[in-house]
Amino acid sequence: MTLTVRKFSVPEIFFGRGSLKYAGLCAKRLGAEKIFLVSDEGLEKSGWVDRVFELIEDEHLKCFYFSDVVANPRDFQVQEGARLYIEEGCDVVMAIGGGSPMDAAKGIALVASNGGTVHEYEGANRIQRPLPPMVFIPSTGGSGSDVSQFTIVNDVRRRVKMSIISRTLVPNISIIDPFLLTTKSRPLVIAAAIDAMAHAVESYVSLLASPFTEIHSLKAIELIFKHLPRAVETGSIDALENLCIASTSAGMAFSNASLGMDHALAHSLGGMLDAVHGLIHPVLLPHVMRYNLPACREKIAKIGEIVLGRRLKNIDETAHGGIEKLAEYCEALNVSTRLRDIVPDRSELPRLCRMAVNDSCLLTNPRPATWEDMLRICEDAW
Amino acid sequence: MTLTVRKFSVPEIFFGRGSLKYAGLCAKRLGAEKIFLVSDEGLEKSGWVDRVFELIEDEHLKCFYFSDVVANPRDFQVQEGARLYIEEGCDVVMAIGGGSPMDAAKGIALVASNGGTVHEYEGANRIQRPLPPMVFIPSTGGSGSDVSQFTIVNDVRRRVKMSIISRTLVPNISIIDPFLLTTKSRPLVIAAAIDAMAHAVESYVSLLASPFTEIHSLKAIELIFKHLPRAVETGSIDALENLCIASTSAGMAFSNASLGMDHALAHSLGGMLDAVHGLIHPVLLPHVMRYNLPACREKIAKIGEIVLGRRLKNIDETAHGGIEKLAEYCEALNVSTRLRDIVPDRSELPRLCRMAVNDSCLLTNPRPATWEDMLRICEDAW
Repeated sequence: MTLTVRKFSVPEIFFGRGSLKYAGLCAKRLGAEKIFLVSDEGLEKSGWVDRVFELIEDEHLKCFYFSDVVANPRDFQVQEGARLYIEEGCDVVMAIGGGSPMDAAKGIALVASNGGTVHEYEGANRIQRPLPPMVFIPSTGGSGSDVSQFTIVNDVRRRVKMSIISRTLVPNISIIDPFLLTTKSRPLVIAAAIDAMAHAVESYVSLLASPFTEIHSLKAIELIFKHLPRAVETGSIDALENLCIASTSAGMAFSNASLGMDHALAHSLGGMLDAVHGLIHPVLLPHVMRYNLPACREKIAKIGEIVLGRRLKNIDETAHGGIEKLAEYCEALNVSTRLRDIVPDRSELPRLCRMAVNDSCLLTNPRPATWEDMLRICEDAW
Repeated sequence: MTLTVRKFSVPEIFFGRGSLKYAGLCAKRLGAEKIFLVSDEGLEKSGWVDRVFELIEDEHLKCFYFSDVVANPRDFQVQEGARLYIEEGCDVVMAIGGGSPMDAAKGIALVASNGGTVHEYEGANRIQRPLPPMVFIPSTGGSGSDVSQFTIVNDVRRRVKMSIISRTLVPNISIIDPFLLTTKSRPLVIAAAIDAMAHAVESYVSLLASPFTEIHSLKAIELIFKHLPRAVETGSIDALENLCIASTSAGMAFSNASLGMDHALAHSLGGMLDAVHGLIHPVLLPHVMRYNLPACREKIAKIGEIVLGRRLKNIDETAHGGIEKLAEYCEALNVSTRLRDIVPDRSELPRLCRMAVNDSCLLTNPRPATWEDMLRICEDAW
């Protein structure tokens, strides 16, 4: 194995049941006097936002609350948040929620400190100045935004989800409390866990994978495969905790190894059709894995070994068997596995693929692909 | 599995052949104008220190060089370094070398920024003020100091190695270049790798182990077991690179999960007799594992599964088989495996154990132990 230089960066992590209690203290340690808190209605209803207000008050800190965020967060929401951050004189960004509030919070931190509009930073390594300290509290066990170098923001005019990737987007502290998942609906738990599974699979076969990311990818696949069904059936805190571990591991992996074609397409689908991100992967991931197979047979066989619990006769059988097992696994979760359920109009597929071929995530896909290759995959998946 | 709250913190890592070239740039990114560079004679002779001088000059940065460091670095060396750091107006600490220069550099950064003497910070979490930015470049594939929250400094008057543990001792950036190992002698490569193996084993069974540390511990055991013999026989860069991966993984694990009785004793031996740290583990680790067995049978069996390449009839056999295999493995490396070679005078053992029972590392040993328990273990190992 010859490695070129690989970078590995993760935030400081507080993990465990009840770890939410450190939220105020962590912000204080980072020098907070007035926190810009980002969340959304779902978290408000479940009472977690009020709990965070209490924790902030306990440390005698001030807080400005911003909840004007939707799924697939919009560029104009980020701009408005940044304006308010400055106007209110905040000094630390805190987010509690799923990928959307967390990605919005990163965008806000970025624009508030680096100026201009969020669009100027699309792509990799385009952020020059340091961001304000960030304390993130994930509530879904999926997006990994709390540990990652990524933020994904919807460019409303172009109907494109922009990937912004920079080491400075890694939050300072991630507080991962499995209790937060107990108030999530089953569909949300599933969508988030499948997103984490896609992070794990794509980061594992990524061209930028390293020994430091690979072990996290594999651990995540193993844990999600084992614990998601039980988490869905019983809502057991033990199973949910394991999903949190998996999601965090997958986040550490993809943050440093990046992703692949499945995410390139998923970002474009999110931008074009506002599709629920986590529900795109069951439709596309097995097809993308089949396409990638010639470029990473041994790695896909390793995934096969984990999900099948054993090796089959040879590498090819184990790899194919693994892909089929993953596809069955998604079907058993009662989520859609056909692209037509997300893109009803098949004639939109070419536009989708012409957009996705420009997504940064495609750069690390193990097998190169043109937009026509991607179109064939989407046709198969439709 | 019920977890209490666990913390996980690692530096930003640059890993790979040739990654040394980023040394100057990394310091600059952290705001350096004048670097306090710590290294030792061995690194000077092999030419690496000159290379770092060049890299620093390339970025138009100034540098003060400090090499008054020995193995098991002394408290007075740290104090003198801190005085010079301030006097010279340095703003970033860089270290290139094995555990000793790196630990000395941490001590210097600590005293220069927090004042007083290094003794005042002995134990866990006693550092109040932030340290200057630190860029560390390990040269041995062993100590893990470049990724850890630990520094170990010799209190000359008391003849005790003090463990100082704090999140703020994690360097900002670790640059891990396997080429640096090519200039190391075989005995040094062995001593360092065995130290990493001990980090991996002790962190894996530690009371503070978490899912985030356990996978790193196991990966390190697997890699060292597989690649150390080849690294010693052939000096192949591929094998050395794998030792670097292992050492880094073991470092991430023990930094966050801490260690156990083997290291408590090793620190005391280093303080009392100035013993070579890495060569203590072959003597003690198998005995400590046997003592710990009742408290962590399944975990030691997991280690057994890795080093044996398979499970034996049951957990106990696999665990015992693993310990014996590890002991044989050390013997095959032609290092001493009897404590008498390190402590010629058996009557010193009680003093050793009375000292070691107070080491912070014992707090996370999976099975509690009195100094008398430790004495029995040392008598067995003698």
